[in-house]
Amino acid sequence: MAAAAVRAAVLHAPGDVRLEERVTPEPGPREVLVEVGAVGVCGSDVHYYEHGRIGQHVVRGPLVLGHEASGRVVALGAGASRHRVGDRVALEPGVPCGACRECRSGRYNLCRDVRFLGTPPIDGAFTDQVAIHEDFAFPLPDGVSDEAGALIEPLAVGLWACRKANVGPGDRVLVTGAGPIGLLALQAARACGATELAITDVNERRLELARRLGATRTIDVARASVEGEYNALLECSGSTTALVDGLAALRPGGTAVAVGMGPDEDATLPLALLQTRELWLTGTFRYAGVYPGAIALAAAGRVDLEALVTGRFGLEETESALRAGREDADAVKAMVLPRSSRSQPAT
Amino acid sequence: MAAAAVRAAVLHAPGDVRLEERVTPEPGPREVLVEVGAVGVCGSDVHYYEHGRIGQHVVRGPLVLGHEASGRVVALGAGASRHRVGDRVALEPGVPCGACRECRSGRYNLCRDVRFLGTPPIDGAFTDQVAIHEDFAFPLPDGVSDEAGALIEPLAVGLWACRKANVGPGDRVLVTGAGPIGLLALQAARACGATELAITDVNERRLELARRLGATRTIDVARASVEGEYNALLECSGSTTALVDGLAALRPGGTAVAVGMGPDEDATLPLALLQTRELWLTGTFRYAGVYPGAIALAAAGRVDLEALVTGRFGLEETESALRAGREDADAVKAMVLPRSSRSQPAT
Amino acid sequence: MAAAAVRAAVLHAPGDVRLEERVTPEPGPREVLVEVGAVGVCGSDVHYYEHGRIGQHVVRGPLVLGHEASGRVVALGAGASRHRVGDRVALEPGVPCGACRECRSGRYNLCRDVRFLGTPPIDGAFTDQVAIHEDFAFPLPDGVSDEAGALIEPLAVGLWACRKANVGPGDRVLVTGAGPIGLLALQAARACGATELAITDVNERRLELARRLGATRTIDVARASVEGEYNALLECSGSTTALVDGLAALRPGGTAVAVGMGPDEDATLPLALLQTRELWLTGTFRYAGVYPGAIALAAAGRVDLEALVTGRFGLEETESALRAGREDADAVKAMVLPRSSRSQPAT
Amino acid sequence: MAAAAVRAAVLHAPGDVRLEERVTPEPGPREVLVEVGAVGVCGSDVHYYEHGRIGQHVVRGPLVLGHEASGRVVALGAGASRHRVGDRVALEPGVPCGACRECRSGRYNLCRDVRFLGTPPIDGAFTDQVAIHEDFAFPLPDGVSDEAGALIEPLAVGLWACRKANVGPGDRVLVTGAGPIGLLALQAARACGATELAITDVNERRLELARRLGATRTIDVARASVEGEYNALLECSGSTTALVDGLAALRPGGTAVAVGMGPDEDATLPLALLQTRELWLTGTFRYAGVYPGAIALAAAGRVDLEALVTGRFGLEETESALRAGREDADAVKAMVLPRSSRSQPAT
Repeated sequence: MAAAAVRAAVLHAPGDVRLEERVTPEPGPREVLVEVGAVGVCGSDVHYYEHGRIGQHVVRGPLVLGHEASGRVVALGAGASRHRVGDRVALEPGVPCGACRECRSGRYNLCRDVRFLGTPPIDGAFTDQVAIHEDFAFPLPDGVSDEAGALIEPLAVGLWACRKANVGPGDRVLVTGAGPIGLLALQAARACGATELAITDVNERRLELARRLGATRTIDVARASVEGEYNALLECSGSTTALVDGLAALRPGGTAVAVGMGPDEDATLPLALLQTRELWLTGTFRYAGVYPGAIALAAAGRVDLEALVTGRFGLEETESALRAGREDADAVKAMVLPRSSRSQPAT
Repeated sequence: MAAAAVRAAVLHAPGDVRLEERVTPEPGPREVLVEVGAVGVCGSDVHYYEHGRIGQHVVRGPLVLGHEASGRVVALGAGASRHRVGDRVALEPGVPCGACRECRSGRYNLCRDVRFLGTPPIDGAFTDQVAIHEDFAFPLPDGVSDEAGALIEPLAVGLWACRKANVGPGDRVLVTGAGPIGLLALQAARACGATELAITDVNERRLELARRLGATRTIDVARASVEGEYNALLECSGSTTALVDGLAALRPGGTAVAVGMGPDEDATLPLALLQTRELWLTGTFRYAGVYPGAIALAAAGRVDLEALVTGRFGLEETESALRAGREDADAVKAMVLPRSSRSQPAT
Repeated sequence: MAAAAVRAAVLHAPGDVRLEERVTPEPGPREVLVEVGAVGVCGSDVHYYEHGRIGQHVVRGPLVLGHEASGRVVALGAGASRHRVGDRVALEPGVPCGACRECRSGRYNLCRDVRFLGTPPIDGAFTDQVAIHEDFAFPLPDGVSDEAGALIEPLAVGLWACRKANVGPGDRVLVTGAGPIGLLALQAARACGATELAITDVNERRLELARRLGATRTIDVARASVEGEYNALLECSGSTTALVDGLAALRPGGTAVAVGMGPDEDATLPLALLQTRELWLTGTFRYAGVYPGAIALAAAGRVDLEALVTGRFGLEETESALRAGREDADAVKAMVLPRSSRSQPAT
Repeated sequence: MAAAAVRAAVLHAPGDVRLEERVTPEPGPREVLVEVGAVGVCGSDVHYYEHGRIGQHVVRGPLVLGHEASGRVVALGAGASRHRVGDRVALEPGVPCGACRECRSGRYNLCRDVRFLGTPPIDGAFTDQVAIHEDFAFPLPDGVSDEAGALIEPLAVGLWACRKANVGPGDRVLVTGAGPIGLLALQAARACGATELAITDVNERRLELARRLGATRTIDVARASVEGEYNALLECSGSTTALVDGLAALRPGGTAVAVGMGPDEDATLPLALLQTRELWLTGTFRYAGVYPGAIALAAAGRVDLEALVTGRFGLEETESALRAGREDADAVKAMVLPRSSRSQPAT
């Protein structure tokens, strides 16, 4: 009898993604096999697709991208007991070693031996089924859709940034960049209690969406400058200018979190200002321990994840999904739905 | 020419409050004189009214009670520059010394030399006008009514409890006691991002109000027991039983905050449990540095303060206001409105 | 050919420890096999020896006690690469699951699935050789003896208490109880920068030892009472009286850490005091992530571990070692040295 | 009768300091008048002396420099009750307003209305007597000399940096720059429990002094590069290169504190590294709330302050003291001793 097969969108070279059949993965010890319901397209997926690498992470062989995923448990590996077949789950895509110094201290996102879906050489979720450690599959309540479940991953990025900046009730938060991460960081900050929520971009439709999602002020940085006295800056554009301008708009003792990664390794920053105001600057690398909170916020309706989806694609259209952002400046988030037979317009 | 006069409701002995005329206070250096718009009746006011003391704080002479106050600036003392005549403000009633170790370390609520409105021997706000240091009068936005402005004070208590417990996004919070403080702690926790919000009481109407204000679960502790796995317990009833049961319902590493003060100095607590789960237990004494955040939450509509008001009274009815809670088990918050000529029913 | 054998001191029933031969353990995947150099006798070992249980932890079959251990790596399991045969190591005796919520958040000491040496049903270190995950064996520098290496474990307890209390430079710390844990908590607090170091006991020789180890004040609580204004209380005696008196001697905002476990589940505590001074109370359960720091302090000479050893015993004398504390009120720490042929007097 | 007079070393223009007589200051309400025993020369004093300004702080009229001071109380202003005439004290030179948002939150070093000795337009301590708020004069124990008392100020800078970096037991700390601040930050880190203490400089005699003061490793950056895996970087040289190299030597999650101020407002920093390792970068501006701890460390012998003094000068030699660092590359700390009649060689 022939082994069961799944489809996967495989990156062979920059600009070359092919739909292929692969043997259905076997869930290992304490793993669950998940039928993928929805996978978001992340900027890093697009970067791998276009350039074949991100910094030192180089795609050296055929690779399945995709790490913002949700789905339904279809099989249990040996010893897996946290889920039942049929359970709907969101996947936390990075599985750390669990024993190193970083893992033990609660910073497992900095584990050097992490295995992260869709980051070379680990295959990701642009496929029908994917296996993952049961502790990194989180139950999705009924009210959270597959698409929202896939967007728990970038929401976790935003929530992690808020935790770094210790965003709390009544805070004034500046988010720079109204792409998917910026829009989710904005909503995360709002959910943490921030009441003044400013966001910048150069695209008016993104700023309009930000207003609908809770921004109390939107700034088109092509026309106006950033001013104010914010507790926290969540820099989500990867622009050094945004970081520099945002630092200047922080209160004494405020915190800037560099979430977006820009093209350059280095940045010229206002060090003397950072000193005289005792500002804090840090960056985020993925997240740790925030999935349950992110799902709870989604389930409670404190964030609107589906509002970000501007394009839906079948698995066979993965390459179109990867190109959607380049081809439409107003696009926010493309979603691949492996169980769907064809592309659907966003509602 | 006769000096201008104000009215004040003066406590002369337990159960003896008289409306009297007093010379209008002069705002001292950097003080503002505030025409009182609304003053909430706090449980501590009632305790002074009934017993003439709270622990070591003894009423030894005629005293004006009342410390939950808002109003309008009518005069400026020498050097006061933060407000203009006509500005609407909420009063933070405790003015600390500003120089001692506690003040310098950001814990000014623990300053031994604090002067606190309505706590002997400092006269409070059940009067037409009161003077206070300009830095302890906080501007009220137009959207925040005088009554809501008065309730910033107990909201600050709830917010301070949330800060002690580090309540954050997706947290599970248990509030014990659905009186004014419990209902405001509940809303503060919600505003901080908590998504599971359980609250206990024995009064069904208070629990019903709690549900309207965001409780996801209400527990009538006369009929059901508290169970669960909460991140934080905000004990607002002053009941040792509630504290003990709440501690047992905390997650490992969780925090219990004793906000309500009970009749006894001591409490028998589950120390071994606290050790094996590494729980944290602390209490709150007033608050520090949370007024701006509390006002921002009110202005942003993240909390509903006016929903707590169940009775409104004129200044000449202050004694009725102080008795309202005893006479109606469903009463939540009585409000004294000095500018109103007579008692009004709550809407 | 007969399988190689090791000796083990096996607890069969309260008061019944027998030296037996057992098959040499095989190190599992990523485990190392360690030839035990020294094992300290802990109060919990004595409690199991005398009562056969500690709370819900019941000895149901033959059990090897001992969890304060150091030694030398003699074999490597599959995939173990952090150590070489011959390396000297201190053992962190609790190996957590590495995946649960507590593990992921850096609180792995609260992992429900931890396997802890010498806690039923896991055999401990009163034996010639013991296997442990390589990540829980920590290299010992040359200057740290086997005995000091064994005492890293109780030092970790003291250091964890200091971390809970956030002991820092210039702090005033009160340690109650000058047994091994108290004396190590004292030294840990000193190493963290505390400059006022008071310690209580009823045994003058222990207090004398405390003075040699850095106590700036010793209090014989049979004769004098505890007073002062401490930043932190490290309660190491298990006495509720000590905890209550120590809480009363804390500064506003101070922290009490209940390290010692007493005979009772509950304790009557000064709740009103805790509220009006906003004190913090917590307890410790083992420790997490402090072994490297503890070893570094020992290697740098910031703590004197060997000063605590008041009795040395061969493996065949394990039962005498377990009885040493009962038979001599001045005894502090008994040490079992499996490679030694017979008992030696302490220097 | 002629009013009593004091001498003061007055800066009239860059390079122009004159000893003049002035009317003895009157201590204001809650102030104490202090007869100055010792005043250290800080790099900022030298900068004002040479350039007449530091950034936006411009010397616009005759100014007395000096802010690292200790002495003896000789008179009490109205209401001053914390000290007695004759008490020896160290002066915390910055007196904040005590009421603004920064003051209330425990960050009074960021108060905009701070009055800081020797910073224009406030006269400093290169004089016989200086008045200061009693709460900013801290008692000096007998064992702490006047010179050590003066050096509490730069020790506070080092301690504040350690607090920002959360330096704790067993930490690995890199200090860049072995000038007075670097040498004190080193000792502060050691007092906080750091056990690996590396320090850089290009002057071998300063590195030799650092070794005597506890450095476990000294790096002559003219010859060798900085490598390692440190928890914290305390950058005390003002060199961007040192900051950049130090950041690269931090562990994931480590903290860099920019203490030294360089000539440039901006610095080109490794932002991508900061992101992928989630490093923290901040700076220090003076300190808040650390004087009592700094004095306690000095009194307990945990730091050696006098070892830094390489030159002693009479008040009439203040200008020589300000020039000492320029004229001798091996000089570390010059001390002005107003009660001494002439310059004395360092022992």
